[in-house]
Amino acid sequence: MISVEEALRLVEEYSQPLKAKVLSLQNFTGKFLAEDVFSPINMPPFNQSAMDGYALHYSDQIESYTVIGEIAAGDTGQFELKAGEAVRIFTGALVPDSANTVVKQEIVEREGDQIKITEPIAVGQNIRLAGEQIKQGELALEKGSHLSAPAVGFLSGLGLNQLNCIPHPSISIIATGSELVKPGTPLSTGKIYESNSYMLAAGLKQYGFTDFDVIQIEDTYESTKKTIQQALETKDILILSGGISVGDYDFVGKALNEIGVEQIFYKVRQKPGKPLFFGRYKEKYIFALPGNPAAAMTSFLTYILPALGKISGAGFIGLRKDTANLDVAFHNKANRSVFLKAYSENGKVKLLDGQSSAILKSLSEANCFIYVPAGVNEILEGDEVDILWL
Amino acid sequence: MISVEEALRLVEEYSQPLKAKVLSLQNFTGKFLAEDVFSPINMPPFNQSAMDGYALHYSDQIESYTVIGEIAAGDTGQFELKAGEAVRIFTGALVPDSANTVVKQEIVEREGDQIKITEPIAVGQNIRLAGEQIKQGELALEKGSHLSAPAVGFLSGLGLNQLNCIPHPSISIIATGSELVKPGTPLSTGKIYESNSYMLAAGLKQYGFTDFDVIQIEDTYESTKKTIQQALETKDILILSGGISVGDYDFVGKALNEIGVEQIFYKVRQKPGKPLFFGRYKEKYIFALPGNPAAAMTSFLTYILPALGKISGAGFIGLRKDTANLDVAFHNKANRSVFLKAYSENGKVKLLDGQSSAILKSLSEANCFIYVPAGVNEILEGDEVDILWL
Repeated sequence: MISVEEALRLVEEYSQPLKAKVLSLQNFTGKFLAEDVFSPINMPPFNQSAMDGYALHYSDQIESYTVIGEIAAGDTGQFELKAGEAVRIFTGALVPDSANTVVKQEIVEREGDQIKITEPIAVGQNIRLAGEQIKQGELALEKGSHLSAPAVGFLSGLGLNQLNCIPHPSISIIATGSELVKPGTPLSTGKIYESNSYMLAAGLKQYGFTDFDVIQIEDTYESTKKTIQQALETKDILILSGGISVGDYDFVGKALNEIGVEQIFYKVRQKPGKPLFFGRYKEKYIFALPGNPAAAMTSFLTYILPALGKISGAGFIGLRKDTANLDVAFHNKANRSVFLKAYSENGKVKLLDGQSSAILKSLSEANCFIYVPAGVNEILEGDEVDILWL
Repeated sequence: MISVEEALRLVEEYSQPLKAKVLSLQNFTGKFLAEDVFSPINMPPFNQSAMDGYALHYSDQIESYTVIGEIAAGDTGQFELKAGEAVRIFTGALVPDSANTVVKQEIVEREGDQIKITEPIAVGQNIRLAGEQIKQGELALEKGSHLSAPAVGFLSGLGLNQLNCIPHPSISIIATGSELVKPGTPLSTGKIYESNSYMLAAGLKQYGFTDFDVIQIEDTYESTKKTIQQALETKDILILSGGISVGDYDFVGKALNEIGVEQIFYKVRQKPGKPLFFGRYKEKYIFALPGNPAAAMTSFLTYILPALGKISGAGFIGLRKDTANLDVAFHNKANRSVFLKAYSENGKVKLLDGQSSAILKSLSEANCFIYVPAGVNEILEGDEVDILWL
């Protein structure tokens, strides 16, 4: 049995970013760049009007200009303006080289094909110069950059529809337990409704991981082993729930061992979630969580989520730490580190009823965990404690 | 032209949660409950063993127990234990009414069918009583609760696979502009690569809104009007980009007017994003954004995102506000409120190069906006400014 701190250190050490992969535009969102990206074009690609108005071959000697045509956004703009000539132009349109300024329509008076400018203007106004945002060959975004919405817009605006990124992992959620029946079906004696696979799937979705499947299996050694083997063939990460304690029907540990999964650790000095297993098989990661739902969810949030971050190139980012003053005294009888379901507001934190590892009601009402490290046995009312925001 | 504050007030006032809808389990994640949910069952549904061990008909007079059978998780557990009898039992299994305590296997010595308990025990140990977490008919989660992963687990564990929720809106992103070509294709003279629809799609995905389509259309009145009409038939929200200025080729405003979309506001005293349009048509919402990418993204983040939150039942939650000290002096020449692309760290904030509304490079490097309200014209180096975290 190892400490929470050692378990986290091992998960961080072993979790490594997936091999880079060329992703297409519709899959950019939320990914991290696996290499520096250089601009294939000047942006804007040409001198571009920043206004609706007129592009002029301007001279301070000239008072009135003859409009010889029009350039809308997207037009090729093939005009040779002589001194005293102008073209009607629109925002985003190409400004011909023979025009030396753009005046916005608000300061132009037009009569027929003649225009007069009603305010002083200068050469080069309202023109976005080619390459002003970025020049062809310049660094657009660095390796490791997060593809947020503006970054997706920026890179697609450079014409890039394929990028070398760290992909998101593919995941199998495998819930074991012969006592489990599907919600929405009748519940016979001795059975309970399956919740862990739905909860873990919701957790993955909530944090942007959508490439997963869900498998529910009975507690038999053969089906457990076969399901794990098949999932290891196609997925990067396996998240198992249940079947990892020491009871006669807990087949997950035996199956993992038989298949040859390397155990990195099994059992963490924590409550809930003591029988947490973390292992590797070739390039794949295996987390086996206890079947008690609150224990499974706590381990998901504290170990798997930061691991998914590191594997996806975001780094090992855990729940956000803070401190708050506890509303009651707390006596830690467990001689283990404990994660307590709690609700924090305005620097105070309230311990919720229902701390059992089987109870999700309190976790669904919680907005944080209180973390009490092993060795801290007495907390007095009002003492400052560490919290982890959910 | 209205102020930023008035525009935000109008968006908040007009945006109302969608009509409740029965959603199925795989769509719970991230939604908000439209009504109180009561538990249809006791949870746990029966007295449940919390340990792997033995269930006893215990009496303090008895030293040795005869094991008469076994109850695994999921079994019906039909045993009538007499005094001095025990059954092997596993975590999650039904504890028969005739057993009055469970002892964990770690403190049991077994020989054949006889067991001895090596430590003092008490009646009622290691049994999770039926209804301990929640009783049939009790309030499980209140109307308005957020369906986080633990809440999804909790409710599915109660057998609920259908819930009355506020659904997420269906959305059409419509990008207009004859100058736009798809990334990955050749760029001819006068054209630029389309970025707004990809950026807005990424923004929706990033914040968990996945029910959207993307339409790219040319700047013609007919195609603009037809596309908007069709989208209004099937979608809750339209997000248009481009075509909303006053140029001759800006058909969005004309089409919206012709269709009968009620204008709530058009033009906001802000930079970037002055020609922002917000309107209603029956129960639908229409946002028309300027075509300049940074202006479109700024309006998306500051207006559309909180509106989507309110429409989805989360409330009108904007970007998180904070303050920081600006690294340079700033002179606001615009006589409008300005959103500046910036990077903040350790209470300081750096104004980024490239503030033009056409420039996304700086926005993809920014982690916040500086917000300078209209009327504040001079900020000195080191002055505290309002920021909005991205």
